[in-house]
Amino acid sequence: MKITIAQLNYHIGNFEGNTSKMINAISEAKKVGSDIICFSELATCGYPPRDFLEFDDFIRLSEECIQTLCTYAKDIAIVVGSPTRNAHPKGKSLFNSVYFLADGMVKFVQHKSLLPTYDVFDEYRYFEPAKEWKVVDYKGKKIALTVCEDIWDVGTDDPLYTLIPMDEMIKYAPDVMINISASPFSYDQAKARIHVVRANVKRYNLSMFYINHCGAQTELIFDGGSVVMSKNGTIHDELPYFEECTRHYLLDEVDAGGSDREQEKVKIALIHDALILGIKDYFKKLGFSKAVLGLSGGIDSAVTAILAARALGSENVRVLLMPSQFSTDHSLNDAIALALKSGIAYEIIPIKDVYEAFMDKLSPIFQDLPFNVTEENIQARIRGILNMAISNKFGNILLNTTNKSEMAVGYGTLYGDLCGGLSVLADVYKTEIYELAHYINRDEEWIPANSISKPPSAELRPDQKDSDSLPDYDILDIILYQYIEKRQGPQDIIDMGYDPILVRRILRMVNINEFKRHQTAPVLRISPKAFGVGRRMPIVGKYLN
Amino acid sequence: MKITIAQLNYHIGNFEGNTSKMINAISEAKKVGSDIICFSELATCGYPPRDFLEFDDFIRLSEECIQTLCTYAKDIAIVVGSPTRNAHPKGKSLFNSVYFLADGMVKFVQHKSLLPTYDVFDEYRYFEPAKEWKVVDYKGKKIALTVCEDIWDVGTDDPLYTLIPMDEMIKYAPDVMINISASPFSYDQAKARIHVVRANVKRYNLSMFYINHCGAQTELIFDGGSVVMSKNGTIHDELPYFEECTRHYLLDEVDAGGSDREQEKVKIALIHDALILGIKDYFKKLGFSKAVLGLSGGIDSAVTAILAARALGSENVRVLLMPSQFSTDHSLNDAIALALKSGIAYEIIPIKDVYEAFMDKLSPIFQDLPFNVTEENIQARIRGILNMAISNKFGNILLNTTNKSEMAVGYGTLYGDLCGGLSVLADVYKTEIYELAHYINRDEEWIPANSISKPPSAELRPDQKDSDSLPDYDILDIILYQYIEKRQGPQDIIDMGYDPILVRRILRMVNINEFKRHQTAPVLRISPKAFGVGRRMPIVGKYLN
Repeated sequence: MKITIAQLNYHIGNFEGNTSKMINAISEAKKVGSDIICFSELATCGYPPRDFLEFDDFIRLSEECIQTLCTYAKDIAIVVGSPTRNAHPKGKSLFNSVYFLADGMVKFVQHKSLLPTYDVFDEYRYFEPAKEWKVVDYKGKKIALTVCEDIWDVGTDDPLYTLIPMDEMIKYAPDVMINISASPFSYDQAKARIHVVRANVKRYNLSMFYINHCGAQTELIFDGGSVVMSKNGTIHDELPYFEECTRHYLLDEVDAGGSDREQEKVKIALIHDALILGIKDYFKKLGFSKAVLGLSGGIDSAVTAILAARALGSENVRVLLMPSQFSTDHSLNDAIALALKSGIAYEIIPIKDVYEAFMDKLSPIFQDLPFNVTEENIQARIRGILNMAISNKFGNILLNTTNKSEMAVGYGTLYGDLCGGLSVLADVYKTEIYELAHYINRDEEWIPANSISKPPSAELRPDQKDSDSLPDYDILDIILYQYIEKRQGPQDIIDMGYDPILVRRILRMVNINEFKRHQTAPVLRISPKAFGVGRRMPIVGKYLN
Repeated sequence: MKITIAQLNYHIGNFEGNTSKMINAISEAKKVGSDIICFSELATCGYPPRDFLEFDDFIRLSEECIQTLCTYAKDIAIVVGSPTRNAHPKGKSLFNSVYFLADGMVKFVQHKSLLPTYDVFDEYRYFEPAKEWKVVDYKGKKIALTVCEDIWDVGTDDPLYTLIPMDEMIKYAPDVMINISASPFSYDQAKARIHVVRANVKRYNLSMFYINHCGAQTELIFDGGSVVMSKNGTIHDELPYFEECTRHYLLDEVDAGGSDREQEKVKIALIHDALILGIKDYFKKLGFSKAVLGLSGGIDSAVTAILAARALGSENVRVLLMPSQFSTDHSLNDAIALALKSGIAYEIIPIKDVYEAFMDKLSPIFQDLPFNVTEENIQARIRGILNMAISNKFGNILLNTTNKSEMAVGYGTLYGDLCGGLSVLADVYKTEIYELAHYINRDEEWIPANSISKPPSAELRPDQKDSDSLPDYDILDIILYQYIEKRQGPQDIIDMGYDPILVRRILRMVNINEFKRHQTAPVLRISPKAFGVGRRMPIVGKYLN
């Protein structure tokens, strides 16, 4: 039996586009004589469809897509994810299902049992869990079909659910397992995935075909890396990360085991590639091709500019250099150097005159109140307006360059440097941004060394440095990581040896700035806990603040 | 048996404040010789605590709060909601529980069974559903305790769950039902609540004490309106809406039935009162007292200013009048008239000079490209900066004045008129805002008649009218309501008799503007489907656009 894995990049709600992609892959699989072709979770409608699932019309279009695919399910079987209506009057109105199409018809449907409802996932919002489990017989083989999370309660010390669907299916003595997934990237997810696939393979003594979605959907970057694992636990094949790929396998060869083909996984390289796919797909799926951003001479905007150029082509990136009276010459020079080196078009727009026009209007109201964060914010907001003017006039999406450390503590101006359609780096801590800059420069100095080595500064008042109001990023990032990623409370972090006053001050800063994060752009997610849809905090809470 | 209902305003994570409120109510109940006092769902930690529930420290503080309340549970029993740890290794790590405290200890705990996970609710994200149901014996009465949603699958044609917890509890022959809730306001929710309470009372032939939370938590406005319903279905008492209240009842009198005391519920009056509580609590719970907003002379900012003055006191509201070269004299005059009438401080800041300073910098880049939405947005964004400058300098929270109709179709400038810490009207359709204005003016002309009667305009280019680019609000709002509130697809709406081209154009406008709504302030929720946490749409989707 020959099995094809099609690791494709779907687009939410683009039924025509998704169907046509699958039809192309089917025709390729037919050419090599495959018996079964496998697509990923909710491939018809794209993942995650979110509240579009509440529209009857949207479900009807998914069903039509399945009907269309049936007409291609001749001489080949198709395994594909799609929503199904729940015919029972009780419970949620949909299932998240894997379809098995063969002989021109729907031959079998297995619903998903374990519905992730944590972090970025909301599946119980829409779906009823399966209460029946079977396997499908095809060409003499019994196949156990599961959907993503269904296999994740195996091999964990902290089971989130009270049953394991494969434990039910194994009673029918299947010959092979196929899992269709839409599992988003975070820098340690690929390893976790292989651990889980292996735990299942070992528990049931069956080979597994694990098919992941590949492509970014706003903040979520589905990284591919589909896995074919032999029943002895060796990785028969691992598909590439961050790109579409279709490959074919003989089940007998997979079952036989053999040499391990696991790809190397280097955290910072994965983050680099993930962010590029994240930018690329955001633009492509919205129908845009050009970006704009403010280039300050600092490291964050430098890294963002290079990633944007790699995602979109440097000819599609435009940068604004917007010095104020507090900007240093070297900042401007570093920004120019980067633009020239990368072939990115730039304009210099000094903001002093506009700033003075604002202050001229405001000084009768402010009277003799001292210069403070108000005036700093005005500068940042003038830059926001200028960036958005280019965006509006020329159709460039503004990229936001905020990093995770400053996003966490609120060190950024709402409607100023927090502007942008997409936040490229706001899930990357400042210390990781240094690593990313060095990785970008590993063969050639794309980012001026000075942008990397100088002390970070917002340059919004004379001689300002980040370290005036924040601890060193080495310490800040560890405390933030323990609070954000690890959900440790203040005492837990203090017990790790950090200054109690500092810890409480930082946690307070994180919590009182929730209102800012509520209004910022979607953040490309590269960590297990990113700001945005996967982290839901009250704004008016009074906890740790 | 005497039972006290305490309908209180909790604050998320403010354990000390919440506990002290409850202790005061307990002492009041003891004075009148009550046997039982009832508080609402998750009263210890506040509702909704969202991802604070993932912090062990936060759960520990909730547990401490229960321990403190135990020391007051002498000569009185306390019914109160709080999270409980799930001791079983499988499943979610918490339960959402109702505690019964008596004789200085935790006498009984019943976990919530039905976990709302739709619209604004995310309970399955955190909680495991109950799998055991009992009643508690106290002073010779058997009491069935449920939490909010637990009673909502009775009396509906569309059950969301597969079991009904009261069906299990009724086997123990309870004498009375107590339901503790945190049920947020929408303009038809109060009626729905009474329908559900009555369906339960009838089904089980028992009186019910239904205790709701009262107070706003960012976008969610918990409206109180707690209900005591006699077993014959009459409303023995209904507590006030939008205010704290503690009342005492003899169970025998409740069981006996009698005259019906249902309060009148007028949609627009409820919305008016809800928005005022929403503003008031947002400020109070964040520790702010003063608001700023831009007053254009149009109806939306006029209504917002009056609501803000009613919530915070007119002495705490400050408005900016920011005419451009496209503003009309009558707009400025209408704005001044409102400010003078209400005793709201105002400043006039013409934006022409700042606008010209921007254009001076941008014209070398724009060259001879025509005036378009770019220049309109620059004006709106200058106003955003000025509003935020006042906010930053004087500590006033900026109120956003956008209405639901324009928020839906993207008729608003990101980082411009969409700025603000709280969006007061973005769940109120333009046609409803007219009703609200008339309601505000019912006894006295607080809002100048001209602001209500003139054709709506953004005044960002010469002679601009909303109707240049949008259909009449009467039609627009109906189409939006069918799409947003009713989740009708394009064909469903066209079949109601609307122009197919118009319907498709409007639905497309809604969908392509998801990126704007992603970055806007929290919206006070007054409808069954508000923008924000209860409506989760993909940004890069390609459905209906």
